[in-house]
Amino acid sequence: MTLVVEGGQVVTPEGVVAADVVVAGEQVAGLVAPGQAGVLAGPGATRLDARGMLVLPGGVDVHTHLDMPLGELRSADDFASGTEAALVGGTTTVVDFCVQPRGQSPLAGLAEWRELAEGRAVCDYGFHAILSDPSEAALADLPALVAEGVSSVKVFTAYPGRLYADDGRILRTMQEAAALGMVCMVHAENGLAIDVLVAQALARGELGPAAHGTTRPSVLEGEATQRAICLAEVARCPLYVVHLSAAEALAAVRRARRRGQPVFAETCPQYLFLDEGLLGGPGGERFVCSPPLRSTRHQEALWRGLARGDLQTVATDHCPFCLAERAPWVGVDFSKIPNGLPGIEHRLDLLHQGVVEGRLTLERMVELAASTPARLFGLWPKKGSLLPGADADLVVYDPRSRQELSASRHHMAVDYSAYEGMVVTGVVRSVVQRGEVVVRDGRFVGRPGRGRYLPRPAGVLGWPTGTLADEGVEADKEA
Amino acid sequence: MTLVVEGGQVVTPEGVVAADVVVAGEQVAGLVAPGQAGVLAGPGATRLDARGMLVLPGGVDVHTHLDMPLGELRSADDFASGTEAALVGGTTTVVDFCVQPRGQSPLAGLAEWRELAEGRAVCDYGFHAILSDPSEAALADLPALVAEGVSSVKVFTAYPGRLYADDGRILRTMQEAAALGMVCMVHAENGLAIDVLVAQALARGELGPAAHGTTRPSVLEGEATQRAICLAEVARCPLYVVHLSAAEALAAVRRARRRGQPVFAETCPQYLFLDEGLLGGPGGERFVCSPPLRSTRHQEALWRGLARGDLQTVATDHCPFCLAERAPWVGVDFSKIPNGLPGIEHRLDLLHQGVVEGRLTLERMVELAASTPARLFGLWPKKGSLLPGADADLVVYDPRSRQELSASRHHMAVDYSAYEGMVVTGVVRSVVQRGEVVVRDGRFVGRPGRGRYLPRPAGVLGWPTGTLADEGVEADKEA
Amino acid sequence: MTLVVEGGQVVTPEGVVAADVVVAGEQVAGLVAPGQAGVLAGPGATRLDARGMLVLPGGVDVHTHLDMPLGELRSADDFASGTEAALVGGTTTVVDFCVQPRGQSPLAGLAEWRELAEGRAVCDYGFHAILSDPSEAALADLPALVAEGVSSVKVFTAYPGRLYADDGRILRTMQEAAALGMVCMVHAENGLAIDVLVAQALARGELGPAAHGTTRPSVLEGEATQRAICLAEVARCPLYVVHLSAAEALAAVRRARRRGQPVFAETCPQYLFLDEGLLGGPGGERFVCSPPLRSTRHQEALWRGLARGDLQTVATDHCPFCLAERAPWVGVDFSKIPNGLPGIEHRLDLLHQGVVEGRLTLERMVELAASTPARLFGLWPKKGSLLPGADADLVVYDPRSRQELSASRHHMAVDYSAYEGMVVTGVVRSVVQRGEVVVRDGRFVGRPGRGRYLPRPAGVLGWPTGTLADEGVEADKEA
Amino acid sequence: MTLVVEGGQVVTPEGVVAADVVVAGEQVAGLVAPGQAGVLAGPGATRLDARGMLVLPGGVDVHTHLDMPLGELRSADDFASGTEAALVGGTTTVVDFCVQPRGQSPLAGLAEWRELAEGRAVCDYGFHAILSDPSEAALADLPALVAEGVSSVKVFTAYPGRLYADDGRILRTMQEAAALGMVCMVHAENGLAIDVLVAQALARGELGPAAHGTTRPSVLEGEATQRAICLAEVARCPLYVVHLSAAEALAAVRRARRRGQPVFAETCPQYLFLDEGLLGGPGGERFVCSPPLRSTRHQEALWRGLARGDLQTVATDHCPFCLAERAPWVGVDFSKIPNGLPGIEHRLDLLHQGVVEGRLTLERMVELAASTPARLFGLWPKKGSLLPGADADLVVYDPRSRQELSASRHHMAVDYSAYEGMVVTGVVRSVVQRGEVVVRDGRFVGRPGRGRYLPRPAGVLGWPTGTLADEGVEADKEA
Repeated sequence: MTLVVEGGQVVTPEGVVAADVVVAGEQVAGLVAPGQAGVLAGPGATRLDARGMLVLPGGVDVHTHLDMPLGELRSADDFASGTEAALVGGTTTVVDFCVQPRGQSPLAGLAEWRELAEGRAVCDYGFHAILSDPSEAALADLPALVAEGVSSVKVFTAYPGRLYADDGRILRTMQEAAALGMVCMVHAENGLAIDVLVAQALARGELGPAAHGTTRPSVLEGEATQRAICLAEVARCPLYVVHLSAAEALAAVRRARRRGQPVFAETCPQYLFLDEGLLGGPGGERFVCSPPLRSTRHQEALWRGLARGDLQTVATDHCPFCLAERAPWVGVDFSKIPNGLPGIEHRLDLLHQGVVEGRLTLERMVELAASTPARLFGLWPKKGSLLPGADADLVVYDPRSRQELSASRHHMAVDYSAYEGMVVTGVVRSVVQRGEVVVRDGRFVGRPGRGRYLPRPAGVLGWPTGTLADEGVEADKEA
Repeated sequence: MTLVVEGGQVVTPEGVVAADVVVAGEQVAGLVAPGQAGVLAGPGATRLDARGMLVLPGGVDVHTHLDMPLGELRSADDFASGTEAALVGGTTTVVDFCVQPRGQSPLAGLAEWRELAEGRAVCDYGFHAILSDPSEAALADLPALVAEGVSSVKVFTAYPGRLYADDGRILRTMQEAAALGMVCMVHAENGLAIDVLVAQALARGELGPAAHGTTRPSVLEGEATQRAICLAEVARCPLYVVHLSAAEALAAVRRARRRGQPVFAETCPQYLFLDEGLLGGPGGERFVCSPPLRSTRHQEALWRGLARGDLQTVATDHCPFCLAERAPWVGVDFSKIPNGLPGIEHRLDLLHQGVVEGRLTLERMVELAASTPARLFGLWPKKGSLLPGADADLVVYDPRSRQELSASRHHMAVDYSAYEGMVVTGVVRSVVQRGEVVVRDGRFVGRPGRGRYLPRPAGVLGWPTGTLADEGVEADKEA
Repeated sequence: MTLVVEGGQVVTPEGVVAADVVVAGEQVAGLVAPGQAGVLAGPGATRLDARGMLVLPGGVDVHTHLDMPLGELRSADDFASGTEAALVGGTTTVVDFCVQPRGQSPLAGLAEWRELAEGRAVCDYGFHAILSDPSEAALADLPALVAEGVSSVKVFTAYPGRLYADDGRILRTMQEAAALGMVCMVHAENGLAIDVLVAQALARGELGPAAHGTTRPSVLEGEATQRAICLAEVARCPLYVVHLSAAEALAAVRRARRRGQPVFAETCPQYLFLDEGLLGGPGGERFVCSPPLRSTRHQEALWRGLARGDLQTVATDHCPFCLAERAPWVGVDFSKIPNGLPGIEHRLDLLHQGVVEGRLTLERMVELAASTPARLFGLWPKKGSLLPGADADLVVYDPRSRQELSASRHHMAVDYSAYEGMVVTGVVRSVVQRGEVVVRDGRFVGRPGRGRYLPRPAGVLGWPTGTLADEGVEADKEA
Repeated sequence: MTLVVEGGQVVTPEGVVAADVVVAGEQVAGLVAPGQAGVLAGPGATRLDARGMLVLPGGVDVHTHLDMPLGELRSADDFASGTEAALVGGTTTVVDFCVQPRGQSPLAGLAEWRELAEGRAVCDYGFHAILSDPSEAALADLPALVAEGVSSVKVFTAYPGRLYADDGRILRTMQEAAALGMVCMVHAENGLAIDVLVAQALARGELGPAAHGTTRPSVLEGEATQRAICLAEVARCPLYVVHLSAAEALAAVRRARRRGQPVFAETCPQYLFLDEGLLGGPGGERFVCSPPLRSTRHQEALWRGLARGDLQTVATDHCPFCLAERAPWVGVDFSKIPNGLPGIEHRLDLLHQGVVEGRLTLERMVELAASTPARLFGLWPKKGSLLPGADADLVVYDPRSRQELSASRHHMAVDYSAYEGMVVTGVVRSVVQRGEVVVRDGRFVGRPGRGRYLPRPAGVLGWPTGTLADEGVEADKEA
């Protein structure tokens, strides 16, 4: 069975070229010059017309929370609706988070999440493991996690009493992760300090969502990011900072990378496009997520960070809760509003809008949305690439048409859009996953439960030879 | 006519994958998964076995001086021997410099150099124009230069009385270049200050080559680089700094790039591998080039600059003079020793040695040696790429064999090697140019004069929107 | 009663001038030109000959631990021997730490320490309050502390289970301190991470003092310093970082100061002169203090920080324990060795050695050792100055004689010297305190218990107007 | 003859204290505690009441151009009117510039200027030597200049054809200056590039004063400043950058100082208070000076530079031309408008306004306006200080009264004020020079021609030991 995507402009990190993609079975058989595909594909091949279109590798979203329990709630999208929305938005792979039940093994979390996904997910998926309680017992199960294809763990400096780990536990986690070739992910906000500010705001009668922003100042994200970097240096563990939103945190990441430390950071579309002012406006509860939305100065810093290589990936932190789940806390207690924004569907469109506005090149967009996240988490070149041998996951993208983002049209199972009414240039036309057209003319046409679990190998990122202190000294000699 | 390069690991900026390269005529027809090439290539195709080998895009060396007159001398390699050595070393494209005769039009220089190359060059070639006298009359001929495919000009802050242009003339050149979409290249050393130091050294009786280094201190390269950056900012002209050798210059480039200014810089293998100490040793005259060789601290800074993206290209500044041409000045007057080192043949091998030593990845090597120089000077994707449609210029590279560099074995028409006796890991096995195998088992098997002139379009690099001052401010908010 | 110090070179932060100091009662009556003192002083004045000598304001050591309990031990010097050693070494004022008993009020600690000092101290003294347990109850007593003349509190990110406060408690302390015009002092090392490393070292059988250094890496001091700075920014509280020893911590302080944040830092002579290698040598237990001794690269950074204004004060962290108290743990458990070095006597001599070696000017020495610590802690111009009206605390210093530091000659009640055998240039000749000669020819001649308690006003340091974020942005525009 | 200034708050770099100043003859005899002056001064002393007032050391303005020829014009103030205005404004010492006549010896310039000043100046004065033509012949006369008390030379990167020296000549000047212990001052703007921009502006018909600003962009001041720093590093010569106005130049100075290079910089009140917008408004010709007025972002950077120690002095570059001398060029040719603003009278008032606005402390004001300029140019402690033995030059300053600046009230011989109508807080009440009250209640009461020539010794500033490269490396280890 063969498919030819022909006539398009293929976008790779190296550049954009006119080429056809020939698919055999589930893989890319070849990337061929225009007019040459026929020979390779043979006469019986299906044709997907990409004239006037961009052909992109399928997106890789390495930060989603599908079907995630939060107290008595669950995030609005399960693996069926969430991955369908992902596909319609051009994302063909997600890496979700399985959560260690407190006091139990992280393996229990993995088992639970694999069951949630199995038979429901329509795009391919893997898991990072959230360590809600990184005890020595939990760390003892990391080798088993790796054996099951989970090669990254996440710890929190935020959320005391729920997910927070103290610096000793984080250091221990990083040490074990480093020994196993795992990557350590950190949610970096100073939760202990934030809790003080939250209690004070509530005591002052600041009950609305605006206080969600003011009680989580950017400096406390910068602090925790710097701390995670230092602990990772001591443990000699590769670090991945999730949902970086603050200029101070970006500066810490940049300094570390400049010294040669293997530190990587992700931001999310909401931090690029949505302003903190929204929290104080009508319906501010729709915009409650952590870290909170920031001011324009942070947005500008993040865009520059994406363009200049200080930030490596864009993921969504998709974790939607419906309006009815947020409403009870409006004017009552901002700190009880379930945290998280919907976004799994619009990552590519929003990044492309950055291209349209001259902030990014197409090549950089593809790096940020597909090839680098795949590479950092052990999925490249199977995922995130159109080179021969890669899984045939691709997007036919119309870069000139415009669309209005709206809850009335989106595929996510949440009753509002964080971008309601925003008009962007660029539309996903078709999506191919492992050789099969799963989105056609913007509509999902795939088979339910088609998604496949992706075990991810460890050992992808290492620690550089030499001591970092020496490297740092050398690095600074140039300045 | 079809050629298949099969069984190798293809290196692209995106990554390394097992793939075959199918060539039809002079272009890459396709990059296909192992085992798929047969279908595309057809039964009559020639086979080039690349099993166990890397397949690299042909190198692009954007800084060579072949057949260059210097007073009464000419550089040792003409376009025949020089481009043959280039090919044997894995470089399939060179961009040489045509020199404006002082007081005449730069077009006269172009005509002269095209004649030197035509029928002699065996690899493809283009030209940058050296403005030895950027008078208003000379600048008036820039549009004609662009029309003939020369889209970059070079000026000098060094060599007063010969090639030096004062800051007013450099600013004017940059203004005109910017208006035409040209890139301005600058040899950045403060020649007026250096001349003072040279005269003083000679007066003190410091006659040997060691004084070549001490009279051209790194701070004077840093100064001139910063100056070129400032003038380019005023003119809003993209800047390409040639043969950057000093940590101070690197720091200036990095600051400018961080502010968003389109500044690019090249270094050369000699500045990565050869130490200033060589100038003071026996045969020090062999190592006289400008800027001079530097100390280890600069070398380390340059390696880091390559790895971290502060430097964009590696070229050779190949400009060899034989020992007999250097000898008369030994112990007599170091400032009369003809400047320039041989190197066109060993750029890839030396960069690969950097890969072997853990300083660079293979992907980064390919970016530095092929794709980025091609892109900056208007040759991508025709050159510097293996994507479909590119010229079929490629190298089959053996990454495990070792070789000893030596004048006794090299193909350059110069009677010494700057790297005599150095052993490196990695050997060029075969080279294909525009579909034809021109190097087989390390021997040149191509046809004389096969090289083709490459007109290069202007307008490849532009100036970012917005004022740089604002960008700079924004950039620094993150720090 | 009048005293004239005549013929010397008076050192002030402004510069060094030939002048006589006329003392009336306990205060400086005037600073007069040579030959003029007689008129002012009158015929009956006592004369102190300072010809050939420097006349310095008496030193102000704002970090001492006299008579400090540590488990079942007490630091070797009580207020009698410690302040006598201080005076002999040219320090006329100390600010010691009273320790809040865990679970009790910090006022209890103050009462206890005032009793320890009263009638024993021979130099003047004040107290900072260590909050070993900064509960809300403890914070409620801060106004009372201020009323009793204690305007600075100290918290610890080190020593979990003993003095450690978590980030929430530190933030709260800083908020309350800021509201009262107090300064918050922080011992900045990441104690939770260090405890992990200590346990691991012991488990590996690394029992000797060398492991004290390796388990407290500089990056963990840098981390905690950055964290304290961020928390202080949130609380808008002036911050004083004690015993800064790591280049990383210095960099964090410098960045904060550059943004305009009121952050100040102290280092100690041991971090300037003693190398980490001592911990691994014979008698390494003598050198156990926290932070630990560091490598030469840190020492050099600290000297530059002193010279260029990134560090503001030099204090001693004097906290000696005798050899017999250290011995039991040698080869048994490095983590049990009582922490702290003797040093109260040699601060001025060691700083003067820095002057001799060209690292500091005399003016800067006086700023670091006397005027700035006095100013930061509310004692200037009463202390730390020779301007008219100041307390007549001064040192007649011989800048040319040499001395060998040795336990056999020092006045501290500890049986070893951290600087045994070190020869320095410069000797304290006489010391005057509040108008009375208390050291003559290097011998203590004062009256027991003469020292006076110094209540220190709050409100000395404030927070700059404007938001720091804006200041930071403005600051970075220049870069 | 004795004078007592009593009841005031004396401001020194160390701090502000209540003290009386006792003057004997021309010098400060003592600084004494309130109530003690009587004894020292004796019964016959004159009394100057300073109650409620600040007592400041007399200002030292190290950048004035009195009676300066410019083509057929001369600057409006000669040494009589100019130094009277200086005194009334609280400046008791000026260092003016004698100009080497092109092609002649700098000694000829000195002789001419000494004649201009002798018998006319009412405040004390010294000279820097402008080298309008730093030929080897001119440099050969530097020892004679030093012998006559001129220990600083000034060269220009601006004004080609008039004062411009190329980089070779500047390097030579710096080498000779360094050998003699002189300081090299540089007017740092890239004159060659500016001339290109000026010609282009005129050709485009931009004739008005606004083009004066746009043709001298800040980046070209930053460039020339960086260049001067590099040349000074090669020559190992202390550098003093005059009238620094651009944030880019400030950044270059800061980087150099951080590396330990002896680089110093001055700014002027006009760059702190006057905005570039004035050049484009009515009467814009009044504001033509070089470097030109800058935007607010530069002003803010300069204020921070003053506060944080990146800038060392504030001088005036006083060089006024009357309106009638500017008028002919309005709308005709901005480049012909005589350059220079009046300002000698208002330096202290404007700096004090900075104190009032919270930008500087009083101590820092005194450092910037008096003690540091005196120190850098060999006049301290004779000038710029109130310590015993200093010349009794002082200002009784009323820090609370307000005044409106206006040409109708000022003492300068120029018919407009650059600050017309500006209201500032702070007024000079009395001025004492060498023991004599020369300004009383704001009116000049001194004797004509009372000013005295101040020979200034060389060798005040040196080059640090060690190579700067090493220092730089060390410095950057901390970052």
